[in-house]
Amino acid sequence: MLGPVNISVAIPDSFLSDEQTLRDKTLKISQIARASSIFRVKTIYLYQDGGIHAAKADRRLIKLILGYLDTPQYLRKGLFPQMPELRYAGILPPIRAPHHKEWQDIKSVREGEVRVGVVVQVKDKLYVDIGLGPLIRFEGVAAAGTKVNVKLKSSFPNLRAEKINQQDIKSSYWGFEVNDAKSLHTLLDQMSDMEIIITLREGESLKNFEPSLSQKLRVKRKILVVFGSPKRGVDEILTSEGFDVHSYPFVTNMFPFQGTQTVRLEEAFLGTLAIINYYLNS
Amino acid sequence: MLGPVNISVAIPDSFLSDEQTLRDKTLKISQIARASSIFRVKTIYLYQDGGIHAAKADRRLIKLILGYLDTPQYLRKGLFPQMPELRYAGILPPIRAPHHKEWQDIKSVREGEVRVGVVVQVKDKLYVDIGLGPLIRFEGVAAAGTKVNVKLKSSFPNLRAEKINQQDIKSSYWGFEVNDAKSLHTLLDQMSDMEIIITLREGESLKNFEPSLSQKLRVKRKILVVFGSPKRGVDEILTSEGFDVHSYPFVTNMFPFQGTQTVRLEEAFLGTLAIINYYLNS
Repeated sequence: MLGPVNISVAIPDSFLSDEQTLRDKTLKISQIARASSIFRVKTIYLYQDGGIHAAKADRRLIKLILGYLDTPQYLRKGLFPQMPELRYAGILPPIRAPHHKEWQDIKSVREGEVRVGVVVQVKDKLYVDIGLGPLIRFEGVAAAGTKVNVKLKSSFPNLRAEKINQQDIKSSYWGFEVNDAKSLHTLLDQMSDMEIIITLREGESLKNFEPSLSQKLRVKRKILVVFGSPKRGVDEILTSEGFDVHSYPFVTNMFPFQGTQTVRLEEAFLGTLAIINYYLNS
Repeated sequence: MLGPVNISVAIPDSFLSDEQTLRDKTLKISQIARASSIFRVKTIYLYQDGGIHAAKADRRLIKLILGYLDTPQYLRKGLFPQMPELRYAGILPPIRAPHHKEWQDIKSVREGEVRVGVVVQVKDKLYVDIGLGPLIRFEGVAAAGTKVNVKLKSSFPNLRAEKINQQDIKSSYWGFEVNDAKSLHTLLDQMSDMEIIITLREGESLKNFEPSLSQKLRVKRKILVVFGSPKRGVDEILTSEGFDVHSYPFVTNMFPFQGTQTVRLEEAFLGTLAIINYYLNS
């Protein structure tokens, strides 16, 4: 056993290019969100695929729906006003990750509990809505309308809450963040604190890399898993940016002997994360 | 490397019970079909889940759409008349497995080539439609309207075709069959020539079983992977049939430390097959 390793992923902003309708796009984004939650992904990096020039609308849609699905249901109404882009996202089944806490009686909330909330300003005072009815006094600095992770500092009826960082929540999975990257190589350059695993049909089996990867992960404890687009593999994308995929040590094919000509991004995403989770935790 | 191992799967006929609309049901069946094709599943056993009593219509729908998706596109019109149940199946992306061959000029078809066809009777003679225009003389016995795998015995313009078995096609993946089972334990009793891998959240890591499983697979070379329903795990299903899941040696949890409360069947299906494929082929 390696012990805990943080997993982040990189996907191209062109990954909706083979979908036509809002419904199909929503579904594909939701499959990415669900697989990310199942395998406790920390950050989803959305890198610009220079070859496809994804519509700005798609890029916006991806970030909107990923953020929406990662938000506990009790905060969605407050944080996401009615928008046509969310028409199909609202009817998706909930992800049910640990930070998507269920409703409980506010009287039973205990000191030390952590919940996701949204900051609300009433006159000159700040409160936080944690989805349990009454607003709770917020101690700290934050703009009204921001999503925050809070820890309760006292119990009912004198509830007070303070902001904590995602890093302070170590005992359970607390959702993912979505970050932008201008290009794939810019992202990879910045990620020198992570071991980079590139997925590519022409890659080698992960098995061949297990000894050297495990050795590196014992020190770094962070993985970034990189996916290509429906139209171009990671090798082509890097080449078009003037870089060479073979300068990275771990270029892997996760689906040896695949029975179909193509594996769709959402399938490769879930299958790859399942294999990496299996490798890391056994 | 273990060398080739045949993979079959068992899924409950209740697996659509958490879907309401024909569109969502179609999509879920299609995800099972696609994952089965990617990981070269030979047979999908659809076992009756006595706890849910799946609607007969659902059972029929599953078999219809799985069969439809496994059929090469050029034969679909002939084998599947227009039916309301196929409304959404027709617009799904093709699976593109090796037996879903693309169109080619009939003059370029060579002796020895294998294609999927459908038997057609014209007067008292049998022909086969292999999707390339003219019918080809069929040598053998088969009912008109049957789907058959044929090998071409000569070349253009004197094309003749003979029926071959799926077992004769060893060099490439040739799609899956769908079979019924009255209950899970009846199926497992019949499958003594296969190593049975049961998926269960409370199971152990597959890693723990790898040495003993590999030893057995070197002899048997066949795996049956068993999935539970959206409502009940394989343990509950077997218990309700009067049997004990722990009488089977390989009860595995494929998603250690999962970040969500639930993993949906179609996700567990793809993720599990990805891990087993990785284990078998590296």
